[in-house]
Amino acid sequence: MYKTALIDLDKLNEECGVFGIFARDDLDVSEMTYFGLYSLQHRGQESTGIAIADGTTIKHYKDRGLVSEVFEENRLEELKGGNIAIGHVRYPAGGDTSILNAQPLVIRYKKGYLALAHNGNLTNADQLRIQLEETGAVFQTSTDSEVIANLIARDIDQGLEIAIKNTVSRLKGAYALVLMTEDTLIAIRDPYGMRPLALGQIGDSYVVASESCAFDVVDAEFIRDIKPGEIIIITRDGLKSIQTPTPLKSALCIFEFVYFARTDSVIDGVSVYAARKEAGKILAAEHPVEADLVIGVPDSGTTAALGYAEGSGIPFGEGLIKNRYVGRTFISPGQSMRERGVRIKLNTLKKVVKGKRIVMIDDSIVRGTTSKKIVEMLRMAGAREVHMRISSPPVRFPCYFGIDTPSKDQLIGASYSVDEICRIIGTDSLEYLSMDGLLKTVESSGCDFCLGCFSGEYPVEME
Amino acid sequence: MYKTALIDLDKLNEECGVFGIFARDDLDVSEMTYFGLYSLQHRGQESTGIAIADGTTIKHYKDRGLVSEVFEENRLEELKGGNIAIGHVRYPAGGDTSILNAQPLVIRYKKGYLALAHNGNLTNADQLRIQLEETGAVFQTSTDSEVIANLIARDIDQGLEIAIKNTVSRLKGAYALVLMTEDTLIAIRDPYGMRPLALGQIGDSYVVASESCAFDVVDAEFIRDIKPGEIIIITRDGLKSIQTPTPLKSALCIFEFVYFARTDSVIDGVSVYAARKEAGKILAAEHPVEADLVIGVPDSGTTAALGYAEGSGIPFGEGLIKNRYVGRTFISPGQSMRERGVRIKLNTLKKVVKGKRIVMIDDSIVRGTTSKKIVEMLRMAGAREVHMRISSPPVRFPCYFGIDTPSKDQLIGASYSVDEICRIIGTDSLEYLSMDGLLKTVESSGCDFCLGCFSGEYPVEME
Amino acid sequence: MYKTALIDLDKLNEECGVFGIFARDDLDVSEMTYFGLYSLQHRGQESTGIAIADGTTIKHYKDRGLVSEVFEENRLEELKGGNIAIGHVRYPAGGDTSILNAQPLVIRYKKGYLALAHNGNLTNADQLRIQLEETGAVFQTSTDSEVIANLIARDIDQGLEIAIKNTVSRLKGAYALVLMTEDTLIAIRDPYGMRPLALGQIGDSYVVASESCAFDVVDAEFIRDIKPGEIIIITRDGLKSIQTPTPLKSALCIFEFVYFARTDSVIDGVSVYAARKEAGKILAAEHPVEADLVIGVPDSGTTAALGYAEGSGIPFGEGLIKNRYVGRTFISPGQSMRERGVRIKLNTLKKVVKGKRIVMIDDSIVRGTTSKKIVEMLRMAGAREVHMRISSPPVRFPCYFGIDTPSKDQLIGASYSVDEICRIIGTDSLEYLSMDGLLKTVESSGCDFCLGCFSGEYPVEME
Amino acid sequence: MYKTALIDLDKLNEECGVFGIFARDDLDVSEMTYFGLYSLQHRGQESTGIAIADGTTIKHYKDRGLVSEVFEENRLEELKGGNIAIGHVRYPAGGDTSILNAQPLVIRYKKGYLALAHNGNLTNADQLRIQLEETGAVFQTSTDSEVIANLIARDIDQGLEIAIKNTVSRLKGAYALVLMTEDTLIAIRDPYGMRPLALGQIGDSYVVASESCAFDVVDAEFIRDIKPGEIIIITRDGLKSIQTPTPLKSALCIFEFVYFARTDSVIDGVSVYAARKEAGKILAAEHPVEADLVIGVPDSGTTAALGYAEGSGIPFGEGLIKNRYVGRTFISPGQSMRERGVRIKLNTLKKVVKGKRIVMIDDSIVRGTTSKKIVEMLRMAGAREVHMRISSPPVRFPCYFGIDTPSKDQLIGASYSVDEICRIIGTDSLEYLSMDGLLKTVESSGCDFCLGCFSGEYPVEME
Repeated sequence: MYKTALIDLDKLNEECGVFGIFARDDLDVSEMTYFGLYSLQHRGQESTGIAIADGTTIKHYKDRGLVSEVFEENRLEELKGGNIAIGHVRYPAGGDTSILNAQPLVIRYKKGYLALAHNGNLTNADQLRIQLEETGAVFQTSTDSEVIANLIARDIDQGLEIAIKNTVSRLKGAYALVLMTEDTLIAIRDPYGMRPLALGQIGDSYVVASESCAFDVVDAEFIRDIKPGEIIIITRDGLKSIQTPTPLKSALCIFEFVYFARTDSVIDGVSVYAARKEAGKILAAEHPVEADLVIGVPDSGTTAALGYAEGSGIPFGEGLIKNRYVGRTFISPGQSMRERGVRIKLNTLKKVVKGKRIVMIDDSIVRGTTSKKIVEMLRMAGAREVHMRISSPPVRFPCYFGIDTPSKDQLIGASYSVDEICRIIGTDSLEYLSMDGLLKTVESSGCDFCLGCFSGEYPVEME
Repeated sequence: MYKTALIDLDKLNEECGVFGIFARDDLDVSEMTYFGLYSLQHRGQESTGIAIADGTTIKHYKDRGLVSEVFEENRLEELKGGNIAIGHVRYPAGGDTSILNAQPLVIRYKKGYLALAHNGNLTNADQLRIQLEETGAVFQTSTDSEVIANLIARDIDQGLEIAIKNTVSRLKGAYALVLMTEDTLIAIRDPYGMRPLALGQIGDSYVVASESCAFDVVDAEFIRDIKPGEIIIITRDGLKSIQTPTPLKSALCIFEFVYFARTDSVIDGVSVYAARKEAGKILAAEHPVEADLVIGVPDSGTTAALGYAEGSGIPFGEGLIKNRYVGRTFISPGQSMRERGVRIKLNTLKKVVKGKRIVMIDDSIVRGTTSKKIVEMLRMAGAREVHMRISSPPVRFPCYFGIDTPSKDQLIGASYSVDEICRIIGTDSLEYLSMDGLLKTVESSGCDFCLGCFSGEYPVEME
Repeated sequence: MYKTALIDLDKLNEECGVFGIFARDDLDVSEMTYFGLYSLQHRGQESTGIAIADGTTIKHYKDRGLVSEVFEENRLEELKGGNIAIGHVRYPAGGDTSILNAQPLVIRYKKGYLALAHNGNLTNADQLRIQLEETGAVFQTSTDSEVIANLIARDIDQGLEIAIKNTVSRLKGAYALVLMTEDTLIAIRDPYGMRPLALGQIGDSYVVASESCAFDVVDAEFIRDIKPGEIIIITRDGLKSIQTPTPLKSALCIFEFVYFARTDSVIDGVSVYAARKEAGKILAAEHPVEADLVIGVPDSGTTAALGYAEGSGIPFGEGLIKNRYVGRTFISPGQSMRERGVRIKLNTLKKVVKGKRIVMIDDSIVRGTTSKKIVEMLRMAGAREVHMRISSPPVRFPCYFGIDTPSKDQLIGASYSVDEICRIIGTDSLEYLSMDGLLKTVESSGCDFCLGCFSGEYPVEME
Repeated sequence: MYKTALIDLDKLNEECGVFGIFARDDLDVSEMTYFGLYSLQHRGQESTGIAIADGTTIKHYKDRGLVSEVFEENRLEELKGGNIAIGHVRYPAGGDTSILNAQPLVIRYKKGYLALAHNGNLTNADQLRIQLEETGAVFQTSTDSEVIANLIARDIDQGLEIAIKNTVSRLKGAYALVLMTEDTLIAIRDPYGMRPLALGQIGDSYVVASESCAFDVVDAEFIRDIKPGEIIIITRDGLKSIQTPTPLKSALCIFEFVYFARTDSVIDGVSVYAARKEAGKILAAEHPVEADLVIGVPDSGTTAALGYAEGSGIPFGEGLIKNRYVGRTFISPGQSMRERGVRIKLNTLKKVVKGKRIVMIDDSIVRGTTSKKIVEMLRMAGAREVHMRISSPPVRFPCYFGIDTPSKDQLIGASYSVDEICRIIGTDSLEYLSMDGLLKTVESSGCDFCLGCFSGEYPVEME
């Protein structure tokens, strides 16, 4: 009954975004969190929530819907008054749209209240859950946050800091975690730094967020990325950093640069925009083609297309127009509806395309169904040739770290060679950026990357 | 923003109703539970939910609203398929309308799934919670069900039956509890039998419910009340009863007969209807008055009024008409709105009332504001005299066992003598049924009663 | 998708209720209208609306839903400020639930604004519509109000009063009509006085309403019924009455007393309550039976049952309990749902019924399906005999004056004799009140009645 | 309470879009109309509706909301079955969000049913309304469609074709009108051709739409634009064109090319995309500047920016990122909210902007508030210089032909010189495209244009 048309099924999809703020002056923390989540909406459209703390207790509200829907009218008003807040936007992993899995998760435990917001995926969540169940724990949700909350609660007698450290030492997998007690804000990034998490400042107040674009909207200054394995504890007295042990090589998810993150974010020192544009340039060098026009598949292919145009000298143009009013739901999807899905979202600019040899840039191909449809549309619009160039290597393997990947039989790169995909999609030529090329786009970061979805080699052993 | 006009603020209000069914033939258990909850709606209008089990897993759905609202359209369809179900209707205790507190509570624990639906109030919930927190438990709701779920989980290694028994041995207070695992339905009534819980049968299938009126709607046969301290475990193999230790005297809430239960229910062997009618008769004997007409305050005063008429020989008539369309919400309650509140719900039958000496029967007076307004209305309609008779003793003390009582300063019986109340309300005379009289109405039950709200003496020591 | 369970399909159903107020002091007219409509809700539950005038313009709001739903929160606030208001509640005639047919209808015409609210049915609406269409009129709704508005507009050059008189002279059928210009309130009752319409006063302010029960809730004093064929025009200067020609005999719908009106209303000098009680008494005299208990089918049969008990000397008791929480919608009505429909609404009081010879009083039988089900339930509850007595003659003919009657093949009285109905419904005996008996209950009114649904003889020739 | 954030208050805004289809094979006309409206959503987001005809009657549904919201779930299903359909999307002119003004307007009149959908504004609507009122017409809405329906109804005795011609001869102003009887589809464009209207074909079936982009989504082939003053009548027998008298010069709204229309539409022979890109090129020639980067204000400035880049040789880049999840409502707009409004919608790409001399292209400046904010943001992001170039002349005058223009004191171009605006907005330089330049972009159309909002000279005299 409820189908989120906002989600592009022919993309990999992010699972969450987190935001936190500790105000040391009179900032309206619920409003700041609202704005922050607004700018992180691309990381999850299923549900959202805000929790605020005022030194003695924690209030929260969460529901299904976009930030602008959930917190309309008086909702935000009811959360006024505290000085710490955390927020979350959630992608409906595995079709699970239960309100019970919305975050932040707020629990009462031995020492009072705890609120948690999590982006990522623990690879040992089931084991931890079983261990906790052995000691009597019960679970009401299927979130990692609930596992983490239980772990903290078990060790809290040793103090919050030690409980957090103990907990972190038991977690495997990817996590960018924002926690809050009545008077403390905590941000944690997993030892591999797989999911991004950044630290900012507004005057004397601190903010943390999945992406730096959330800082801009609240006029916060970017300070630095939280380091892999770093725990940051913010109290009235200031900020304290604890560095936990990390592996030799970090493993930031490279797909953040390929597709997930907003172009205006900077992650681990690399501008997402710059990386995407560079990817286009390198792609032009690796896979040149004689053509009249470079176009991007909106919105995600545009930046790489600009790079390809710059690199190749072939002019950039708009060949595809996106309908800005695609809604959350579709009517009962009869056959003709499904077929027309892409047509509703995208249209060709016949004037631009007609008679041209087109290089069409996209960031990735997941199922291939959308790409096939777009190529058909371009040909119907009179394109003489359609050459597809992808600004990342073929996606061939699932992700275990918080990204929703389709099953192997739906992942076109897992079953077919590039040549076969080219035929299936119906392009005159199809080329992907090389792994080396992709890594070059982010080399200024100085960190290492998880390339699992391309290579099948993951930084963490699966359990 | 959300004000349940369905709740009469001048009454004590119930906190919940529970229903459970174990089908051993092809009954549609979700539909049966829907019907059962429909007939228990008077026990709680804030939220409702149904959980079903099919031998291997548990599905559930719950939301704010009436049964007819929450389970409209396709909701019930999505719960089809199992053979065990439990359901719950909830009254918004203390104004708490959070969806998180809706029941049934469904948890995953060491042995799989557990669903719980609870009516009552544990008097040692805070202590239990603290003890559980000491061992690391975390809590997401403020329900007793969550405490009970945690207790069961801690002892589950000893088997479900022992875990249940251990848990029960630690609970203090009032509870009628329905639990469900993937393949087992369990019903528990507290050792004092404070809240009602009955057992019924449909062919080979079993049902349990807060009141027997829920059996009629599903064509179930009433078998017997579940006994104080009894644990009933129903599996594929049949029904097993475990009797836990009980105090010398039981303590069924007598207010179930006074007001809470539906007239067509039979609780612990006593027909609610018969008890109410008898209360009216005894009231007539205890407090006769010369008058022309006996009327009841609809709907709860009608049966006792019939009894008073029969006992006194004064004719019964309809003097007050109730608007059947009073909705869930009121518009922003300005002064004139509030004042007109009673007028919207009730109107006088001038033709009947004019020039008459009226005996007006109600089951209880809580705040007294409604009574005062009704008396005014009757006088304006031309009543010559208005004598009020209450079919129970004055409510003077709070309830600690699951009933929402107003604070002492709002409880008119706590601050004023009967004479003073008579003057405040503006009646020509006011009399209450004696405690002995009330007890006589339920003596055929053979059980003992909690009279705490009248006497201040409670069966359980408060902790 | 939208099934109004609030409507009893085994009853004839009213089509509308109207309310109007002209304030000459600082009354809040929108609030008064809200309260008035609240008390007229039984006359229509499909949609509702309020229009207010402030001397220069007219604002209005209308929507599907109950009064308490449509005017929740800020809706009423937005209508503040005028000194005249009219309101309407609507029954979904013929399943038509289009918002476009909601009333009041507000139009702009040559002289400004006009708002209309109508209860009844014009028998020559189609002819008038065709005549108007001949001169170029267009219609956006299927309401009589739109026809009337067009008629007034055609003659407005001769002044409002003459336009109204001309219009009235062309209408055939039943109507209780409330109109409003920017500064004038007009109330009109058809020459036969078929639908009720009463006039009341609050200080210097005037109110009109379909039933006098609407006066009580706004503390208005009943002045008198508006006379058949009377036009009342209320302005700043006071009230003016115009009497148009009327037929020799009036023809008030007698079913208002049988079922439609609220018990606490007084129509054309007769208390609805008194008429119903008297009907019961006469019924007892006409059709006595040896029995142990008289019960009424709630809610509409109760008053007649009290009369029957008084007349027969057989004690009155509650044998059927109504669920007060029956909602607006049912889940997709599978077979088992439909069968259980009556069970959800009503339950038997076994304690009362068991072993008894029951006289069951209802006001009418329309389809007979509900009656049959109730008789079954009573027998299952142990009733020894069930004798049904109906406090009106058999409904055998359709109504053309604003009442929703089922098609002839669904109208049990149209196809079967009383004996046959008795067998179909399964009662030990079945008797109806005679026509003479019914007329006796309302003889104090001094007016004549439409008995069309019983006799097939209508006051107006059909066109 | 209801604030459409989807509308950019710093733009001129369109008032409507229309769509119509006459199927001569088994096309699903309601679904086609749904898709067509989806692609016209940019022309109006307030309400939408679809009416379908099946040869004998007309059904319709309309409501407030986006196409995807109004026609979710079963709504479209309920409109299945006909062979002709028209649809409408509406912009909330003057804040009027009444459902009564939603279109299509469906009326019953002498000859049956008529449905109308209108884009534009009649300048003599008030006079026509008064004339109609003189002959008795009543009006329920404030739409031009209702006036037009009444005019047609008055003349229908002369046949539909003559009635339409007579009606058209009396209308003054701008209109693209789609009408439907039970068996005929009619499309009309005003004699000046002010609002666009195009004709397409799917096999033997015809479609009409405000913009050609609606043809692409339903796989229709563009045939031609409907001519100024042309009436097209489509029946089972085929298409008939009637040419009514036209003025010497047509007057297509040039702002369709500047901003309103979707880039992928072709209007009167001119590709919107091509016109916008050409505007950028000419702007570069007219107002060159030494700079490092050309950026567009998304989404409307992008195409002209590409043109400016091409014309100037300065590289094009993305300097501003738009949030794709800006919702329909904002929370209660406190001061900080309002100030942050632009920040939520747009962010700067610091990496791109920093240290650069920027040429920022937008299509127009209306209030100037957004422009001022963007310039601030660019400077904060480190832009060394910000030169603003507008791809149309200054908007200085109101529109009387269906476009929502702010009052003169809010229209920055009406009160200030270009130099003053430059200072107010805070740019290093500001230049607009000349009128000649703008006209050059559309010269291939061969038609004439309304330039009223720039020049104050309108094609039609105001009455």
